[in-house]
Amino acid sequence: MITQLSDEKARTLLRSRHLARLACTVNGDPYVVPINYLLDDGEIYSHALPGKKIDAMRTDPRVCLQVDHIHDDLHWSSAIAFGRFEEIQKPECRRVAMTKILSSFPKMTPVESMIVQDAAAPDSIIFKIVVERVTGVLEG
Amino acid sequence: MITQLSDEKARTLLRSRHLARLACTVNGDPYVVPINYLLDDGEIYSHALPGKKIDAMRTDPRVCLQVDHIHDDLHWSSAIAFGRFEEIQKPECRRVAMTKILSSFPKMTPVESMIVQDAAAPDSIIFKIVVERVTGVLEG
Repeated sequence: MITQLSDEKARTLLRSRHLARLACTVNGDPYVVPINYLLDDGEIYSHALPGKKIDAMRTDPRVCLQVDHIHDDLHWSSAIAFGRFEEIQKPECRRVAMTKILSSFPKMTPVESMIVQDAAAPDSIIFKIVVERVTGVLEG
Repeated sequence: MITQLSDEKARTLLRSRHLARLACTVNGDPYVVPINYLLDDGEIYSHALPGKKIDAMRTDPRVCLQVDHIHDDLHWSSAIAFGRFEEIQKPECRRVAMTKILSSFPKMTPVESMIVQDAAAPDSIIFKIVVERVTGVLEG
């Protein structure tokens, strides 16, 4: 039996996970990639090197982020957050956001660790997703 | 170090997994949900009850399907298939497709099992994604 999650329970699931699939559009076509993220004060924080998903979200900021907790085929939950991409550009805001993100992902790659050492470097993109709406479902 | 997967290796990853995240668009906005699927002869097969994702793909058949194999934050691979939704409507084709899908997912829910018993029931949507292009990346 599949049931809807309340807004609160969907946000709790979002808060409890750090791996999501982020969907955006490229010339109107759907595009989805895995990302690490942090939900903090109702907003989603993440970072990336320049590339296709950043170009896509700069062009069209509408995104959909999906997370799930799957125990087995019959016992799982999934939450979806709909929102808008916003790049964090002020050096101090970048540093604060990146420190929060790093505290959640101690096992970052060397490239990502380098970004933290120099959060103002132009190549590192730090962004948030302003969450407008969440939904979720549960089976089992 | 993140490297590109060859077309062959991306397809091998797609073939080895059965849980994907399917992105489509709803009124131009991205939408992403988890689905079970089967890659058979280069095409992706799945099924669903009527709902938002089916309505979305009937309106705009362009989809993006993402799968991954994550060992840890530093050792993972991800593949993306770009393609088009096609509903399987002929009763015999539906039965053949659903039998393939069932053989991959023995632990289906009662609702899904019911669908298999009556593959021609109008409520069960069986579809394939005609794969046009695949990409993939590997870390570690």
